[in-house]
Amino acid sequence: MAKVVLTPQAENFPAWYQDVVARAELADNGPARGTMVIRPWGYAIWELMQADMDRRIKATGAQNVAFPLFIPMSFLEKEKQHVEGFSPELAVVTHGGGEELTEPLVVRPTSETVINHYFAKWVQSHRDLPLMINLWNNVVRWELRPRVFLRTTEFLWQEGHTAHATYEDAVEETRRMLEVYRRFMEETLAISVAVGEKSPGERFAGADHTFTCEALMRDGKALQMGTSHNLGHNFARAFDIQYLDAGGERRHAATTSWGTSTRMIGGTIMVHGDDHGLRLPPTIAPHQVVIMQLDSEGEAARRVEAELRAAGVRTHLDDRTHTSFGRRSVDWEIKGVPVRIELGARELAAGEATLVRRDDRSKSKVPLDGAARAAIALLDEIQQALFTRSRAFREENTHPVTDFDDFTQRLGDGGLFLAAWSGTEESEQALRERTSATIRCIVDADPPAPTCLITGMPAEHTVLIGRAY
Amino acid sequence: MAKVVLTPQAENFPAWYQDVVARAELADNGPARGTMVIRPWGYAIWELMQADMDRRIKATGAQNVAFPLFIPMSFLEKEKQHVEGFSPELAVVTHGGGEELTEPLVVRPTSETVINHYFAKWVQSHRDLPLMINLWNNVVRWELRPRVFLRTTEFLWQEGHTAHATYEDAVEETRRMLEVYRRFMEETLAISVAVGEKSPGERFAGADHTFTCEALMRDGKALQMGTSHNLGHNFARAFDIQYLDAGGERRHAATTSWGTSTRMIGGTIMVHGDDHGLRLPPTIAPHQVVIMQLDSEGEAARRVEAELRAAGVRTHLDDRTHTSFGRRSVDWEIKGVPVRIELGARELAAGEATLVRRDDRSKSKVPLDGAARAAIALLDEIQQALFTRSRAFREENTHPVTDFDDFTQRLGDGGLFLAAWSGTEESEQALRERTSATIRCIVDADPPAPTCLITGMPAEHTVLIGRAY
Repeated sequence: MAKVVLTPQAENFPAWYQDVVARAELADNGPARGTMVIRPWGYAIWELMQADMDRRIKATGAQNVAFPLFIPMSFLEKEKQHVEGFSPELAVVTHGGGEELTEPLVVRPTSETVINHYFAKWVQSHRDLPLMINLWNNVVRWELRPRVFLRTTEFLWQEGHTAHATYEDAVEETRRMLEVYRRFMEETLAISVAVGEKSPGERFAGADHTFTCEALMRDGKALQMGTSHNLGHNFARAFDIQYLDAGGERRHAATTSWGTSTRMIGGTIMVHGDDHGLRLPPTIAPHQVVIMQLDSEGEAARRVEAELRAAGVRTHLDDRTHTSFGRRSVDWEIKGVPVRIELGARELAAGEATLVRRDDRSKSKVPLDGAARAAIALLDEIQQALFTRSRAFREENTHPVTDFDDFTQRLGDGGLFLAAWSGTEESEQALRERTSATIRCIVDADPPAPTCLITGMPAEHTVLIGRAY
Repeated sequence: MAKVVLTPQAENFPAWYQDVVARAELADNGPARGTMVIRPWGYAIWELMQADMDRRIKATGAQNVAFPLFIPMSFLEKEKQHVEGFSPELAVVTHGGGEELTEPLVVRPTSETVINHYFAKWVQSHRDLPLMINLWNNVVRWELRPRVFLRTTEFLWQEGHTAHATYEDAVEETRRMLEVYRRFMEETLAISVAVGEKSPGERFAGADHTFTCEALMRDGKALQMGTSHNLGHNFARAFDIQYLDAGGERRHAATTSWGTSTRMIGGTIMVHGDDHGLRLPPTIAPHQVVIMQLDSEGEAARRVEAELRAAGVRTHLDDRTHTSFGRRSVDWEIKGVPVRIELGARELAAGEATLVRRDDRSKSKVPLDGAARAAIALLDEIQQALFTRSRAFREENTHPVTDFDDFTQRLGDGGLFLAAWSGTEESEQALRERTSATIRCIVDADPPAPTCLITGMPAEHTVLIGRAY
């Protein structure tokens, strides 16, 4: 078999990541700093993620819409914390149609401001609530240290926005969407995540509460995979979203927003990938099964292909019999195709096919007639095995810590650290100054000590701490 | 029945259009000049158009990808005609991350330049050809006289880009996609279109040949619904897309591009709409059937709903029994829902249901048990009837003309004018200066006269002339 030309993970994880992105033909860097070109294999993965997430979002009652790319600067300035948080990341259009604009336009970094402006028009009565919309679009946040899929100046995402009659309804919506995201990560991406609230220092600019799904990459760093924000009355006040309640009184609505992005592709690569390349969960694999036809007679291959397609399996017949078997196998391994069915002259003569699993690279011989059925059964097994492995990895690499020096010494080995926390701004600041780690989220667990890991003050919360992308 | 508050088409067609867009809750104007907010009903129509078009595009072998929103100005300048054509329409980002950029970034008006730059990287050998990609994204062209869906500064679209070994292959691809578009317009949008080549004055900036689908709106103006461009070797030379042919010689590839946009929503409104609102072809209706439950007992309504859903019909049960029947009927009429099933106490007592067609507003009574089946049959009839009507309207309003004065006098009545044309730039220029009309396309038909309608010179082509959006 041809040599795999990926840098081993253990040698240099960032180099491995770049190799996989390039060799699996997922993406290229764009010409403008921090932008990316998503190639067919990467985009097909994104389309499958989108379709699945879109179904889940619509099932909550939200409807898709489109809002403009350009937002007048004055809109952003209406919510003080929001504009402070996003100002350093903005791209600004100053010229249009050959003339300088009287008011500069911001390329949306997120759409709360423009959407809440329209919510104020659309919401008049309690009968108009809840108002739940979702957008699939592109946003721009200027990125000084870009990395494809993980931190890019432009990325693709969905952003949901809702308005509710009461604060409690907004609390419930924020939690409902966090749960939609958690289930998507686990059921579709086969990625085990920790869920919890963000600390004030990591909160969305303008939110009362931000909740997050945090996954653990194979290099021991965390990745924020999706967030759900309770904006309370902050945007409703800034944009004057008021409604008449059933008793005829005017009240401010409460709003939320929630988002997931192409960053999830990066997370999928770094949670499941190994030294042989990507390993895709079958749910989001553009080809779930590749049939490797090994000689020019392809009748059996086409029969297996037809059977798989009839069962709704995304199937690709690789009939490049002029290309070496090794080269073709390596191609599909790097691209992360869950199952390969090899059909060579020897196999066919014996009435057999060889099934190769991508997750554990195991091979098995099956009767040719049962090859399609066996492959379908493997897809379920692989989906489950990837998730189980991801969960075990996260659990094994979550370490309770009670002593700050012990924690800082172990931080270099990666993983998530479960710690008691005082909840103060000072302690969060101290953590950032003294280590390269941040509080990833507040979790629902007993604190491992009565006092804060960082300050020694009385503990208020249990948190997960780690280095993050 | 409640009063319909749309301006009649005959009174003021542009006002009627604005009324329909607002009352059917299709879209709002955005805060930045020329931008739009596409609301749930409008966006659901777009999603159905997208899904159908996407299937057709993928069936040709093209794969979806994403390219960056921002293009360095220097990229645009590489193809001289292209930058000249698009310069007046560009939005330019001059500041990013709080600093002035060293090279301004253009917000893509279309992506030929950046894509052909990558084609040059990806195309090395004749085995890499044809290379066929498609993008669903947003583009920006500064618009001085914006109109929702028809001319907007930002719009949503698909842009396809292909590279081929030979000029002939590019010719073939350009024509293939024109045919894909024509069939989509006719089969999915139920809109009859004229297809043909654009005259040089209307050609895409940088193309050798541009082909178009032209539809005729109910006010007698034409709308360009989709275009397919043969870029020949122009971009391949500008961006140095070269490949080694089978004989080992380096050759320039030939490229094409083709696109359709949210403008098609505007076309659908103006081709099918009447004084009562939108009339949606069932293929792109978010609700194909609305069941109007008229009293609080909804058992029969839910049974019909279940039967329709089981048959794959997009069905909505309107159980707002507290709202007046008239108000609800008008809502669904304006929104263009193809079929309504009315279930009142009187109907149910008689074991009947009333079916209402949106296209001709006819009503019929059917046995309750057969209501779902009857509605499904109506959907097919309506799709066909809308197309037949659109074709008849276009044919009836296409007038052969042989005398320029006669033509200019009739131009105010609208329609398309079939004329002989010399093919010269001067005559195209003269037409533009002396009338408000343009050549919509060169068609494959005998010229109605031996000499050019405009100049009297010998005729080279038969063209359709008209006023256009």
